[in-house]
Amino acid sequence: MIVVMEPRATREQINEIVRKIQDAGLSSHISAGVERTIIGVVGDSHTKELLRQSLEASGGVERVVLILQPFKLVGREFRPHDTIVDVGGVRIGDGSVVVMAGPCSVESRDQILQTARGVKAAGAVMLRGGAFKPRTSPYSFQGLEEEGLRYLAEARAATGLPVVTEAMDAAQLMLVVKYADMIQIGARNMQNYTLLREAGRVKCPVLLKRGPSATIQELLLAAEYVMSEGNYDIVLCERGIRGFDNYTRYLLDLSAVPVLKQLTHLPVIVDPSQASGKWKYVPPLAKAAVAAGSDGLIVEVHPEPEKALSDGPQQLTPDSFSRLMAELIPLAAALGRRVQAPAALR
Amino acid sequence: MIVVMEPRATREQINEIVRKIQDAGLSSHISAGVERTIIGVVGDSHTKELLRQSLEASGGVERVVLILQPFKLVGREFRPHDTIVDVGGVRIGDGSVVVMAGPCSVESRDQILQTARGVKAAGAVMLRGGAFKPRTSPYSFQGLEEEGLRYLAEARAATGLPVVTEAMDAAQLMLVVKYADMIQIGARNMQNYTLLREAGRVKCPVLLKRGPSATIQELLLAAEYVMSEGNYDIVLCERGIRGFDNYTRYLLDLSAVPVLKQLTHLPVIVDPSQASGKWKYVPPLAKAAVAAGSDGLIVEVHPEPEKALSDGPQQLTPDSFSRLMAELIPLAAALGRRVQAPAALR
Amino acid sequence: MIVVMEPRATREQINEIVRKIQDAGLSSHISAGVERTIIGVVGDSHTKELLRQSLEASGGVERVVLILQPFKLVGREFRPHDTIVDVGGVRIGDGSVVVMAGPCSVESRDQILQTARGVKAAGAVMLRGGAFKPRTSPYSFQGLEEEGLRYLAEARAATGLPVVTEAMDAAQLMLVVKYADMIQIGARNMQNYTLLREAGRVKCPVLLKRGPSATIQELLLAAEYVMSEGNYDIVLCERGIRGFDNYTRYLLDLSAVPVLKQLTHLPVIVDPSQASGKWKYVPPLAKAAVAAGSDGLIVEVHPEPEKALSDGPQQLTPDSFSRLMAELIPLAAALGRRVQAPAALR
Amino acid sequence: MIVVMEPRATREQINEIVRKIQDAGLSSHISAGVERTIIGVVGDSHTKELLRQSLEASGGVERVVLILQPFKLVGREFRPHDTIVDVGGVRIGDGSVVVMAGPCSVESRDQILQTARGVKAAGAVMLRGGAFKPRTSPYSFQGLEEEGLRYLAEARAATGLPVVTEAMDAAQLMLVVKYADMIQIGARNMQNYTLLREAGRVKCPVLLKRGPSATIQELLLAAEYVMSEGNYDIVLCERGIRGFDNYTRYLLDLSAVPVLKQLTHLPVIVDPSQASGKWKYVPPLAKAAVAAGSDGLIVEVHPEPEKALSDGPQQLTPDSFSRLMAELIPLAAALGRRVQAPAALR
Repeated sequence: MIVVMEPRATREQINEIVRKIQDAGLSSHISAGVERTIIGVVGDSHTKELLRQSLEASGGVERVVLILQPFKLVGREFRPHDTIVDVGGVRIGDGSVVVMAGPCSVESRDQILQTARGVKAAGAVMLRGGAFKPRTSPYSFQGLEEEGLRYLAEARAATGLPVVTEAMDAAQLMLVVKYADMIQIGARNMQNYTLLREAGRVKCPVLLKRGPSATIQELLLAAEYVMSEGNYDIVLCERGIRGFDNYTRYLLDLSAVPVLKQLTHLPVIVDPSQASGKWKYVPPLAKAAVAAGSDGLIVEVHPEPEKALSDGPQQLTPDSFSRLMAELIPLAAALGRRVQAPAALR
Repeated sequence: MIVVMEPRATREQINEIVRKIQDAGLSSHISAGVERTIIGVVGDSHTKELLRQSLEASGGVERVVLILQPFKLVGREFRPHDTIVDVGGVRIGDGSVVVMAGPCSVESRDQILQTARGVKAAGAVMLRGGAFKPRTSPYSFQGLEEEGLRYLAEARAATGLPVVTEAMDAAQLMLVVKYADMIQIGARNMQNYTLLREAGRVKCPVLLKRGPSATIQELLLAAEYVMSEGNYDIVLCERGIRGFDNYTRYLLDLSAVPVLKQLTHLPVIVDPSQASGKWKYVPPLAKAAVAAGSDGLIVEVHPEPEKALSDGPQQLTPDSFSRLMAELIPLAAALGRRVQAPAALR
Repeated sequence: MIVVMEPRATREQINEIVRKIQDAGLSSHISAGVERTIIGVVGDSHTKELLRQSLEASGGVERVVLILQPFKLVGREFRPHDTIVDVGGVRIGDGSVVVMAGPCSVESRDQILQTARGVKAAGAVMLRGGAFKPRTSPYSFQGLEEEGLRYLAEARAATGLPVVTEAMDAAQLMLVVKYADMIQIGARNMQNYTLLREAGRVKCPVLLKRGPSATIQELLLAAEYVMSEGNYDIVLCERGIRGFDNYTRYLLDLSAVPVLKQLTHLPVIVDPSQASGKWKYVPPLAKAAVAAGSDGLIVEVHPEPEKALSDGPQQLTPDSFSRLMAELIPLAAALGRRVQAPAALR
Repeated sequence: MIVVMEPRATREQINEIVRKIQDAGLSSHISAGVERTIIGVVGDSHTKELLRQSLEASGGVERVVLILQPFKLVGREFRPHDTIVDVGGVRIGDGSVVVMAGPCSVESRDQILQTARGVKAAGAVMLRGGAFKPRTSPYSFQGLEEEGLRYLAEARAATGLPVVTEAMDAAQLMLVVKYADMIQIGARNMQNYTLLREAGRVKCPVLLKRGPSATIQELLLAAEYVMSEGNYDIVLCERGIRGFDNYTRYLLDLSAVPVLKQLTHLPVIVDPSQASGKWKYVPPLAKAAVAAGSDGLIVEVHPEPEKALSDGPQQLTPDSFSRLMAELIPLAAALGRRVQAPAALR
């Protein structure tokens, strides 16, 4: 941490800053330049963030520059090697490309069973599907809730595909853990700290989606909430941030993939369906995500997108999804990677 | 709703769209232009949003344009006159300027009592202060929780100022309702639908803050969640959206004030402290908010910002806050309004 | 400038950095922390920016943090007192509120004469009007060009109002200087460095509008281009940046006003017409701009907005403009300021 | 074009709108719904944009919805098949991946000759290098100007690689055309309409970069400026838009690639160097761009990035560039495409 003083800062103001640094059990390092004085803070302490705010609020201070990242457990400095998250035998982060697929919402027993069989046949290794749906409008379909979870469990039994599904609060989390293999925390709840802490206390992998206005650092600190409670099995997901152009629903930030892979040991996957909001753009963005180094994809597939109860326009048909999978296999190979195959085929 | 067909759309595709509109119990209206066919959808139905998605996912459709706003209860068309929200005698939305003030976090009994007396003396009519704090990092101070709520209630007893404080989940909501006069739903929880629904079921006014990437429509639909459960006492709050410049913490969107006042009957206030993140910018932005037509302000004030356990840099001292209040009184008068005075002085 | 080394940086990499700093004629200051080494750069040099890039591109460097602002002449450190720009007797930046008004485009002799008289009667002290129009589409009305400049000069002769109008390239600049009192450099040309340099070489005040994606620093560096060529008469203008909501055309950033007033000695005005794109929002935003500390306003006024050849929806009628002026006078007074009156009335 | 009337619109207001549409030589189509009246505008006219603004500024109108795209010549409806732009034998847009490479700035004869040979050996088919440099600060290196152009021409003579380089104004454009094979119009000048028109009048292909806050539509309308003057040889370039996170310099918008490919027949390439600002992220983003369907790449390569006079941190060394090229070849093959080889090797 470095404190940049204002050009007019007085001697007393500088001394006051030095005193505060000492009171926090840290040492300081003054560098008096021609134009202004700069004070370095040396040492570490768990109250450093508080000290930063105190210094920033002090007289004569122009700004405080942080040198170290504010996250710990999620950082590469804490754990240099890639974390591999095991979800019912699927290994996310081992270098292969993991594809999760399924409908936006679970709508009926038939719909999810049919989709599960279809995406498995096409090569997906995990099944997605929402039972609890966060919808912008209170008048939209809100999901089948526990009934949906039961159908998901049935689809897993029928296909062997592990299931990922969203929980929006602590009560739903307990239900999801009972039925599913991986809890999704959605973009709108990325900073729902109560939910993050609860997710940190269960023994179940977490898929944490980036909020549409979340910085990379905020996403990592949200993961830090989960890890700080003891759950280290976290997969991050880029799903589009708020952009200014309406041709796509959100703005897919693929540079987040290499940036995150450099900063954190956690796996990173991409959701091209939520990001684009239009099925036509899903295949090129899915391929781009893999080329950018994503550990996997989560793709929306619906047997009849025109009849979907939510987000029809962004869901692929099983046929288009099969074609996409057929393109991903040589693509991954060209990148020196492979698309992860179902356990039975390994 | 208007369906714009692609230039190459076939006769069958157009017929299919018409059929779907009829199946939804609505009627259609075809306009065959030189370049493309446009189909108007006439009538209303609670499944219109679903129909929109189905049409958008259909073959031959370029895009679907919504004509009506997707919100209902919060809209001016539902209720043309301004809603006035009464919080313990303070009337928000009656044309006057309501000022709420207090520390970012409740830190001790003394701190909140002292601040409450200070902001009351300066002219504030409501007390703010966080007992449950949503913090970006799990290692930051998380609030005094129920103890903080008790101190807030004590401060109200001592000063007569109604209290607004944040709840981050359903459990906290029940506690907040027990102690406070108004529940704050913070920016990070603006789309926490479980919390919004719970807030809709209690008899307590709600202060709903705009999320940093929320569109005006998303904010109004979040309020619609609360209203659709029966709680009509909602105050909206602009507190800065995600910008690209770092001189301020967020980007205060003051055009949201007249836009919201036109679209909704609910009161709208502004938080210049969270928006700017720097106390120096709070007074000019507070005055600008009032000039833009805001129904009030929520301002952070701390007896010793340098010692604050959260957000010190953005908190005013009681002295600067007094000066701001002294400036707001003639400003409001010049605008044909008044700063609302404490009940005892009315 | 501070160089933060990577945790794994080697001794040689650190030495290399130190050597480069010395080669640039500056001295270094090593601080070896537990987690990483930090190297301070002491002294100043005109090649500092180049050194920064060289260091950032060197092995073992995590990032380089700049301590000082990159602009010079425009900064408060160069000139602590407010610059007052005199435009034909109108003094911008002297503490009063300067109002410039007129149509988006000059459309005919009658239209500009009528508008000039109308805005003068209402209290404006400068006339605006575009003769060269930067239009998003090549098929839109592009302005009357030199004919428009002549009408503007005629309107000035008739009313005594100094004229501000846009130039989009060096050739237009020479024409504009011949007829007008102030050159406008529009938002789209804020980083047209050829034009900025030309504007720096003429003896004519410049109104420099912020580009829609320009940071505060980029705006100040654009002004630095003009000043570095010798023209110190610059007025900055906030006119809305790119936002994500479509209710307004751009997103007016009023926090830019106090931020700029702190960083630079140059006057700052606000354009609420371009920012909002809708006349209904112009009066509240104009008042908010003044309350935020703006040195003035530039407002679009057209005798018949429905018949305007450009931007009709955002132009006020002379009547609405008169009402706005009548509201600004007591507002300015309440803020301890005044709306600047035409020279004849002073 | 569809006019949505306000719920309270009067009969007279509706008649007025109908009259205006007729006056513009178009016909109208009224649809009186329960909640509001909607008026369709049928027919086409070159004054449609003006009519839109006039209607939007009329009483009783809530908003006007455009149905057709505002661009013409650049659209797929004007020309359904992909345009192939030939630059000295390099065919951009023919399905292959075209790689342009070279330093950010031309710094010396040796530097550009050495780089040209290096990038050619690695497989690039065009040489980039700035002779006129748009720099945010007036104190940064501004390029070697005509001397730089001469070195570029010499490098072309030595290697056979066609040259692309930037022009910032009309005078520079004439010089660039004399020496180079393709004119670059940079992001900061995307809406410099004088320059766009000039570029439309020369016989030289144009590389048009997207401005950091430009919507897709604004980019296409900028290209329309060039085309409307007669120059149809335009290549569009996505180079990152303004984002809110500082880990990268700009935010690369790869969804712009499939969106543009759908809307326009013009080729689209990607600049991963400018977008990320950090060489480490260039290879993953370059590969992602190709996977997203980009017609090519423009990549910054410098023999000694640490000594570069501009943008050192984002330039690849010739070695890293060779490795990237070696990765692109199998990647393109896996996508059913190929990396375009120099003419001699075809």
